Amino acid sequence: MTITITAFERSPDGGKGLARDTRVRWALEEVGQPYQVRLVSFAAMKAPAHLALHPFGQIPTYEEDDLALFETGAIVLHIGERHAGLLPADANGRSRAISWMFAAVNTVEPPILELVTARILEADKPWSKERMPLVEERVRARLAQLSARLGDADWLDGTFSAGDLMMVSVLLRLRASGLLDAYPNLAAYVARGEARPAYQRAFAAQLAVNIGHQGKPG
Amino acid sequence: MTITITAFERSPDGGKGLARDTRVRWALEEVGQPYQVRLVSFAAMKAPAHLALHPFGQIPTYEEDDLALFETGAIVLHIGERHAGLLPADANGRSRAISWMFAAVNTVEPPILELVTARILEADKPWSKERMPLVEERVRARLAQLSARLGDADWLDGTFSAGDLMMVSVLLRLRASGLLDAYPNLAAYVARGEARPAYQRAFAAQLAVNIGHQGKPG
Repeated sequence: MTITITAFERSPDGGKGLARDTRVRWALEEVGQPYQVRLVSFAAMKAPAHLALHPFGQIPTYEEDDLALFETGAIVLHIGERHAGLLPADANGRSRAISWMFAAVNTVEPPILELVTARILEADKPWSKERMPLVEERVRARLAQLSARLGDADWLDGTFSAGDLMMVSVLLRLRASGLLDAYPNLAAYVARGEARPAYQRAFAAQLAVNIGHQGKPG
Repeated sequence: MTITITAFERSPDGGKGLARDTRVRWALEEVGQPYQVRLVSFAAMKAPAHLALHPFGQIPTYEEDDLALFETGAIVLHIGERHAGLLPADANGRSRAISWMFAAVNTVEPPILELVTARILEADKPWSKERMPLVEERVRARLAQLSARLGDADWLDGTFSAGDLMMVSVLLRLRASGLLDAYPNLAAYVARGEARPAYQRAFAAQLAVNIGHQGKPG
């Protein structure tokens, strides 16, 4: 079985690990599955060949024999179902870990994406400064709830799971904003995720792609 | 086995079916599982007893024997894994249906939620009118891609699945905006979902709760 994923030829973040292929690389590293990477340019992402794999013209995609998947959450879940290391063995624990995967992408990530949009895509708009506190407050509301639930535990529900992988990945997007600093247990939780050898390997692999472009004309 | 879900005592939409318990009711109706509903007030949703079930103080939750779940996507997936009717029998088709579930909540719904926020929570802000075209354009970009992929098919990937249940539910939030009207195949897709007997039963059940409050003081 050969696994092939797609990633940005040049990531918009320059290799900070925020592109979503890092989440899939991390999952594959946690379960010890080798994989190949096909790099795609922004132009190629919107071309028919890639759209056949990913209807929304994004990365990552996942190919394994005659199966093609898109959406990071679905890919990480697929990997967790096929290989040990990302989901608890008992059925109830597994369903709860999947609750946290969906919570990461559907409850915690949307206000964070809105903050990223406000900071980057709407930074030059006349309303940018006045609107920012509203957007930040929506993120803080979620962080406060997540912080209260995590308490002094290492992971969200027992041992490390795909739910933690997704949640840590989502929270990493907040680093530039400084919003995480007000919640020391969440900052420590993110650091715990980053310290995992599998994350380190995934981060290094995506960085190597992007370092290759440094100093070259865009 | 007794299944108990939670729903708003009084839904903010007054019974239009947009509260997320409708998605879970729909899934349970598709697989023919009876369920009980515990209604919660806005105050109760933020109290410790409910936060123990749902860390973000929302509805729906799902209880079944000693299992407690939150997050609509995870609950619908759990139902689909335990009962026939929501996920294809073959492993690859099942993984692809899950791709569409995540696409619904993580790629299509976030810009729609941003539009709802802009139309409701930021309607009285000085930037509201000038910013709205930007927000609408982000929704249209996703709708155009989804419309291109759906083409003239009835459902997103073969027969009706939990992926369609989630995608139709997400698109239903756009009805008030009129944005769906520009994509006749998506409008027909949503209508096809609403026409399913299981959806009709789910809609009627949530409406009955909210009709009970009509004319009573809030």
